[in-house]
Parts: sequence; C-alpha cells; structure tokens
Amino acid sequence: MQLTETHRPTLDQALEAIRTRAYWSPHPEHPKAYGESAPADGLAAFEALRGSRFDLDQPGTDGWTGGEVSPYGPELGIEYPHPDLDVLLPAMRAGMGAWREAGPETRALVCLEILARISARTHEFAHAVMHTSGQAFLMAFQAGGPHAQDRGLEAVAYAYAEQTRTPSAAVDWSKPQGKRDPLELRKTFTTAGRGIALVIGCNTFPTWNGYPGLFASLATGNPVLVKPHPRAVLPLALTVKVAREVLTEAGFDPNLVCLAAENPGEGIAKTLATRPEIKIIDYTGSTAFGDWLETNARQAQVYTEKAGVNTVVVDSTDDYKGMLSNLAFSLSLYSGQMCTTPQNVLIPRDGITTESGPKSYDEVAADLAAAVGGLLGDDARANALLGALVNPDVKARLDAASELGEVALESREVTNPDFPGATVRTPVIVKLDGARKYWDSTDSEPAYLSECFGPVSFVVAVDSTADALELLRRTVREKGAMTVGAYTTSEETERAIEDVCLEESAQLSLNLTGGVYVNQTAAFSDFHGSGGNPAANAALCDGAFVSNRFRVVEVRRQA
Amino acid sequence: MQLTETHRPTLDQALEAIRTRAYWSPHPEHPKAYGESAPADGLAAFEALRGSRFDLDQPGTDGWTGGEVSPYGPELGIEYPHPDLDVLLPAMRAGMGAWREAGPETRALVCLEILARISARTHEFAHAVMHTSGQAFLMAFQAGGPHAQDRGLEAVAYAYAEQTRTPSAAVDWSKPQGKRDPLELRKTFTTAGRGIALVIGCNTFPTWNGYPGLFASLATGNPVLVKPHPRAVLPLALTVKVAREVLTEAGFDPNLVCLAAENPGEGIAKTLATRPEIKIIDYTGSTAFGDWLETNARQAQVYTEKAGVNTVVVDSTDDYKGMLSNLAFSLSLYSGQMCTTPQNVLIPRDGITTESGPKSYDEVAADLAAAVGGLLGDDARANALLGALVNPDVKARLDAASELGEVALESREVTNPDFPGATVRTPVIVKLDGARKYWDSTDSEPAYLSECFGPVSFVVAVDSTADALELLRRTVREKGAMTVGAYTTSEETERAIEDVCLEESAQLSLNLTGGVYVNQTAAFSDFHGSGGNPAANAALCDGAFVSNRFRVVEVRRQA
Repeated sequence: MQLTETHRPTLDQALEAIRTRAYWSPHPEHPKAYGESAPADGLAAFEALRGSRFDLDQPGTDGWTGGEVSPYGPELGIEYPHPDLDVLLPAMRAGMGAWREAGPETRALVCLEILARISARTHEFAHAVMHTSGQAFLMAFQAGGPHAQDRGLEAVAYAYAEQTRTPSAAVDWSKPQGKRDPLELRKTFTTAGRGIALVIGCNTFPTWNGYPGLFASLATGNPVLVKPHPRAVLPLALTVKVAREVLTEAGFDPNLVCLAAENPGEGIAKTLATRPEIKIIDYTGSTAFGDWLETNARQAQVYTEKAGVNTVVVDSTDDYKGMLSNLAFSLSLYSGQMCTTPQNVLIPRDGITTESGPKSYDEVAADLAAAVGGLLGDDARANALLGALVNPDVKARLDAASELGEVALESREVTNPDFPGATVRTPVIVKLDGARKYWDSTDSEPAYLSECFGPVSFVVAVDSTADALELLRRTVREKGAMTVGAYTTSEETERAIEDVCLEESAQLSLNLTGGVYVNQTAAFSDFHGSGGNPAANAALCDGAFVSNRFRVVEVRRQA
Repeated sequence: MQLTETHRPTLDQALEAIRTRAYWSPHPEHPKAYGESAPADGLAAFEALRGSRFDLDQPGTDGWTGGEVSPYGPELGIEYPHPDLDVLLPAMRAGMGAWREAGPETRALVCLEILARISARTHEFAHAVMHTSGQAFLMAFQAGGPHAQDRGLEAVAYAYAEQTRTPSAAVDWSKPQGKRDPLELRKTFTTAGRGIALVIGCNTFPTWNGYPGLFASLATGNPVLVKPHPRAVLPLALTVKVAREVLTEAGFDPNLVCLAAENPGEGIAKTLATRPEIKIIDYTGSTAFGDWLETNARQAQVYTEKAGVNTVVVDSTDDYKGMLSNLAFSLSLYSGQMCTTPQNVLIPRDGITTESGPKSYDEVAADLAAAVGGLLGDDARANALLGALVNPDVKARLDAASELGEVALESREVTNPDFPGATVRTPVIVKLDGARKYWDSTDSEPAYLSECFGPVSFVVAVDSTADALELLRRTVREKGAMTVGAYTTSEETERAIEDVCLEESAQLSLNLTGGVYVNQTAAFSDFHGSGGNPAANAALCDGAFVSNRFRVVEVRRQA
C-alpha cells in the first residue's frame, strides 16, 4: 500500500486543524458526494448482510451469537462470532511487537487507510447505524459516517502528535565536563502500547462514540478488542472487519483488532474489564457501569462517558424567534436521545427580556412548546428529525414524564409509513418549579436533577438568573453535563455564566440562534465533553485522551 | 516584574530541549558557579533558620509544629505553621480565578521566576536538603538544587506546551453550506485548573521528587498545597516561601501555594487526600500508601512513585573494569537510598565473558565487592559518596540483610569527623541463589523479589542469561522498576533485553562503564520511570504527567 502518498497529506491537515481549531473535514456530509450508485450499493450491501453469519476469521471463536432488532422493526438476523477469551486475548497480543516497531507514523497511516475504506462505505454504515440506533437515515449517515470518521481521524492526529513529541531516532547526548571529556550517550525513545484496549460501545452512537477510543488506542500501539452494545453490533462489526482487512494487507496481524460479541445476558464487558490483559478501557453508557469500571478495572486506564444533566439558561435574548427555533431543534433531534441534548431549560419566574418586549415564564414555556410543535407538525419532517425510540426504557421514561408536572407540550405518536414497527414520539415538555427551596431540600431531589434520557425536557421556573446560575453550578458539579447553553444580552450575565462553566468545567454555547445547535460538536474544533465534571472523565479529543495510552521507553547506551 | 524579558528565552530553550532531548540545563551544577560569597551566605542563611519559627503568613494557622532532626545528628529546631484545613483550603481556592485568567504563558513565567529565586539560593537549599535527607553535601547541592530545579522547569515546559496546543484566542470557525451562508461561530478555549493540588513530599529527595508535581500543577492553573515528609520539611517550606513571595510580587494571591506541616502522628496526608477540594495528588513514597491513595482518593488525579526492584543483568562485557567501577558507584551513591539504585545484579551461574577472559559467578561477585570496597576504602571519599542513613529503618534492613545469604561484602561503619552523630554505612553485598525453582516457587518469595531500600544489594546466580531475562521480566511486571541496567556484548542478547523492557515498560541503561550511572537521569532528556510498571504510574516528565491537570473549557458564540 502507498500509505504515505495517500494519507500523509490528510494526516498533516488533521494536525493543522487540531492546532488552529478551524473548520475542516475530509469526509463529505452530503450523501450525494459518494457517487451516483453509492446509495443503492450501500443499501444492497446492508441488505446482503441481513440474515447472514458475519465471519471475521478470528481465533478462538467458540460459537455464534446475535439477535439485533432494528428500532424500526425488522430483525437483522445477523450472527457474530463469540470469543473464547483465553484463546482470543493471547492471539491479540501476538502482533503487538511488530505493531510497536512500525512506529507512530505507520500506525497513523494504517488507521487512516481503515478510515478511508470505512468512508467509502458510508452509505452501508448509515443503514447499519440507522437500524441499530434508531437514528433517522440522514442523521445516521452524517453522525454515524463522516462525523464519526472525523472523530476517529482526530484521535489519530492527537495520538500521532503526542507520540512524536519525543524523537524516536537516536539522540546524541553530550554533557560538558569542563576540561574533561564530555559525558556522551546515545539514546533511543520508543513509544510502546500498554496492552489490549477494550472499547465498550453504546446503543445510540456505536461508531461516533466508539471510534475515538478505538483509533486512539490502535494508533498508540495497542491491540483493540471491540465489545459492542448487544443491540448495536453491526456498525462496529463492519468496522472491525475493515480494520482486519487493512491490517492484513499492510503486513500486520489482523488480530490487532477483534470483536467480542456476547451471548444474551452474558455481561462479557464485566469479565473483560478486570482481565489482566486489558490495559485500556473506553466506555460510553450508564453512570452505574461507568462508575463500576472506574472502581474495579484498576489494572486499566479507564475513559468514561456517562450520564449528565444538560442545562440551558435563558436570561434574555435579542432574537427570541431564533432562540426558540434553535432550542426546538435541539430538543427534537433524534428524540432527545443524545448525551448532549438539553434537558433543563431554566427560566426566571418573572420572565425574560427580548427584542419584542418582556416574556413571562409561562409565555416562554408556551412559545417553546409551540416551536417544537410547529417543527414537528408535519409527520414526514418529524420522522426525518426524530428517528425512532431506541429501546422500551426510553418510551417508559417518556410515558412517566408527563406525571412529573404541568405538561407544556404533550408527546405525540408519529407513524412512520416506511417502517410501521418504529416507535416514534415527539418530545414532551414539562413545567417544573425550580425554587431554591426545592433543590436545596435534603428530603428528596427534584426530578430535574436526574438524567431523563430521551424526548423529555423540563422548563424550570427559577427565582432569578442568579438562582439559575447556582442551579446550573450544582447540576454540573453533582450530576455532570456534556453541554451547557445560555441566552443573554447582558455582558455581566454572560461573564457570570462563563465563570460557572470555567469553574465547573462545562462546555458552553452562547446565544445560538442559527444552524448550529448546542448538542452538536464539530471534530477538530469543538471538544465533546470536558473531562472535568461527572458526565465524563475525558474529552474528545485532547492530549489527555491519548497521552496515557502508551509509554515512552528509553534505551541509553554508552556512546 | 519583567517576566517576559527575563524568562521567555529560558522557557523557549526548555521547550526546545524537551523536543530534541539534547543536553541542556540553565542551572549550574558546580557550587563555585554561584559566586564567591555564596557558600558562606548559604550556610549562614541555613544556620539562621535553625531554632526559629518559620512563618509563612498563611491563613488558618492553628498552631506550630516541627521536630526535624538531621540524619547527621543535630536537631533543626524549626517550627512550621500547622493548618486548619477548613480555613486554609477555601483561602487557597480564592486566587484560582485570577490565576486561570493569567493564562499559560504568564503562569509559566511566574513559575520560572520562582525557580530562578530558588536557584539563586541553591547553597542554602543544599544545607536544608543535606540535613533532612542525609545526602552528602555535594549531592544535596546538585540533586536537591540544579537537578531538582531542572525537573521543575521541565514540568513547566511540558505544562506550557500542553496548554498551548489549543489556541486560547478567539477562533473564527466557518463551515461552508453549499450555496447558503456558511455557519459561523466565534470560539474561545480556556485552560482551567482542576482544583487544589496536593504534593506529598518524601524524606530522601524533598525537592527533586516534589518539584515536578508542584510546578506542573501550578503552571496548569491549580493552587498547590505542599505536605512535606515530617523529617524533610525545611526544603519544601523554603520553596513555598519563595513561591508566595513571587506570587505576591506578580500580583497574584500568595495562597496559591501553601504548606501543610503536620503534628507528630497526625497523618494529615490521609485526611487531605480524600477532601473534595483536592483534585490532584503527587506522591513519592511507599507502595502501601501509594496504593491506598490510588484506591481511595477517587476524586483526584493521582500520580504516584512507589517502591520497585531495580535489576542489572550481567551477560558479558568488553570493559570489565569499567563495568565494575560503574556498578560500584551506583550501589554506593547516597548509601543506595535512591529509588533508582540497582538492587539485584543477575549473573549467570556459569559466569560471563569479558575482554580478559571468562569470569565465574563467584569471581564477578568478589570483583564487584572489591570494587565497592576500593571505592569506599578512604573514609573521606566514603563520607562524600554515602552521606548518612536517612532513618533507623534503613539501618535495620541493612543489619538484617547479611542474614539472607553468603555475604560477598560486609557493610562497614564509617565515622564522619564533621558530624559524629551521623550513621554512615557502606553497602552490604549478599549472594543469593536465583535458580528458577526458587522464584517460580509458590511457597515463599525469594528475598530479592522485595525492595530492600538502602545500602543492600544482591548478586543473584541465575541458570542462564535467558533465565535472567525471565526473572527481569517477572520482577518488573510484578514489583515494578524505576531502572534496568544490562551489560552484554551480544547484539542478540541486547535485543532480547530491549524487548523485555519495551514489553514491560522499563527504562534501560546499556553497558554503562563511564561517568553516567544507571541511577541518574538528566532532565529534559531522560525519563525518570516509565509510568507503565508498578513502580510508578507516571514518568517525569511527559505529556501524560501534565495533560490531565487542567481541562480546556470552550465557549462558542454565534458569530
């Protein structure tokens, strides 16, 4: 393979992008950019996988397992290899020496080839993501395709930059000794992976949340075992397959990337997480299991993204309509099933100021409800935005939410003509009282202080903007947050919100009224999470995300 | 203060040095380089501190404590402020906002001013280190002075480099949207410290082991609370004093750096380590407490350097005399009280090849004993190399060691004419059987598989060089190692040793026969520890050591 000629320019552009944080992506967002036959080819490739055995030719396969059912209804009927870990894990370590010797640049370029081949099959991946996550097609295409590939490439760029901070080649070190001869040594520095890295995938964003850890670990010299969510195996199985093909063609051991599909109820993640061979774990999912991993997987570096409670503070705006439509989109996209979707919209009880005069709390709540209702009034647009509920737990939470308070906007059932089996629901908006006496209470915690994952939002009446900031601070500190949004025309308030976010380590979007939404981040420029509050112990992507996935081993010799 | 003019060139040189790993230091090693009056001034300054109250003007001082006794005999008689943590910790947080706003460059330059003022007082610090650690004067001067300052500066350089990987200034981000207007955002990225950082100092190298964590945390925006070892308070109290002076003069809150001296038996480190305000911990000391910190201080980033068992593999050499004298120096320096001192010298039972013919295991053991005996035969030189035993535990281990096997070299008591109260001992060398059946035994672990900190070395007879490498691998994997040394003339064996070190993450020195020793590392070029084996979870210094001491908080605004 002509890895350098093909991919070095892309790597250099990625390195430049993470340095400048300007907009950049080599992966087109538009489905038409992939060629005329790509849509049909991608669909056909996906359909061909259904009802088949997905063989990866991995060592130590002791059975077959599967059972994915699309949130849109159909069973996928795909079987994946089930691993005998006592055979698979040693086999994965076998190729580590050659992978280490390849060095950071070759490892990066091999990763870029994997990503390039995934990119070429973006339409196929889009169907795989859609029918495991329940995302609508275009979102599955973009978030599961180019945006996920961007995050993978970003991790490769960080990994390359971090590993090459220290020169690998021999360094001639000479220390003057006055009139005596200098002390002289020859030194080499080798980046060495830590051991097998485990990626524990999630249901909602199998590729987007899986790629950063996968590529960061692989690029830093570690074999990677991918343990997908049992309901979202296919996108990561496809990824593993592509990786194994590229590794083989590049002359490396394909077992550097393997899949660990599990039998129903097996809980293989827990078994794997404490195996001594596993030295790195990337996890996206519930706080309970994330905390379990951090407590118990002590032999590993553990990177977790867990639950959080995302807040939007509404103080004032000079574009009331823009604010409402921006928020309505954020609450609706993928039925609020994003870790970045706002949950609590804090509004002063006495209302807010806007360019068209003051608006009371009730008016803002009603206008936001109307904006969401309007956005999703048309079923075709609603389906294109909402996708399907990913699992019955989300629907149960949605059903329960309307009991929590006065409902500003009822959830509505939407029929998907293409997939009658899909469960599609518009968001519910519930009004809650956020008076300080409630959230200061030691008796019981208000509902809005827990994550209610799915299409559920709370418009919370607070006594003042100052109280909103204190509630924001408490929420981020105790519950964590992937995102914070705020609307204000006051410089002083803006500064106060920034201070809370700086002090509590939360990523802030201010006064978004156009086509950028608080729940979306752009790789190479925006950080996803901060790593500094309970929602996640790592950010995508920064130096800390990659720097402890390898160690630098020095050998020094008498010169 | 003219911080930029004074220190920016030094920072730039440090940044260049960590990139090239070439020899560099701005801190002279030679005592004469500090001016004609410096030796007398330094001694006088140290003497003036004795028997006094060391006031730091910290908030929340609720008493005075002290009781350091020099390993050379004299009581220091210095009292330090004892903190009321409920007053001190909130006071330390107060200055964090302004320190964050100062930005990475100003923070780095303030750190460099602190280091420069410490450097100017190196003679005074040398006496403080000597009379707390028991190091001989020249070693206390060099390791406690310029070498410690180098490691502090190195940490500042890494911290600066890491923080400035992301631009802080506003970034204009523009994403094309085909024929529509591009999406545009203005973005700022601010590095924010995580909270109060705790530095838990050690007895033997209070400044050398304390400075990397102290300066890494301070430079990344965190207040730093220094908890010195109760027997080595003075060097770090002086450091805190200088830091507070510089912070004040630069317009920052001096409480960004404070001292936490403790009452006898108080165990304040344990109390502090689990306080919610403490977000970062740097620790050097026993494995037991290091493991306790890693397990219990879950709210903090924990960087530990613990015990290890350092090995030298002797396979063959073409400079037998050079090897023996190099090893003899390494075993003797500071009475083996370095975390980097070799403990186990593995020698094939059938002997080794040298340029002057084969040498049997017994011959090598006897020749090494003779080399150490010769090096330390003269009492003046012995005192200058050995220093004093730091505490009675070390002497107890030394006394017990001769019971473990055949003694190749008896320890000898040395009188220090200047300090008759000093406990000075030459190293003991004990011959042990390292046959595989012993270290494979599940009954009891051989003595050489535990750290025996102090002037105790084992020459271990192994069945072959291959067995030596397996014992090396097991030792590093299970016990950890700060250093590995090896002597071989065989390229194949050299490669095999390198592979073990790469696989087990240990820093390797090969065939050292001159004036560089396995137990010494040079800042800006050599890594101290690898962070990848049980001896330490971090290396001094690399990206991983600094990258998680801060988080990057992004604020994005509609453009």
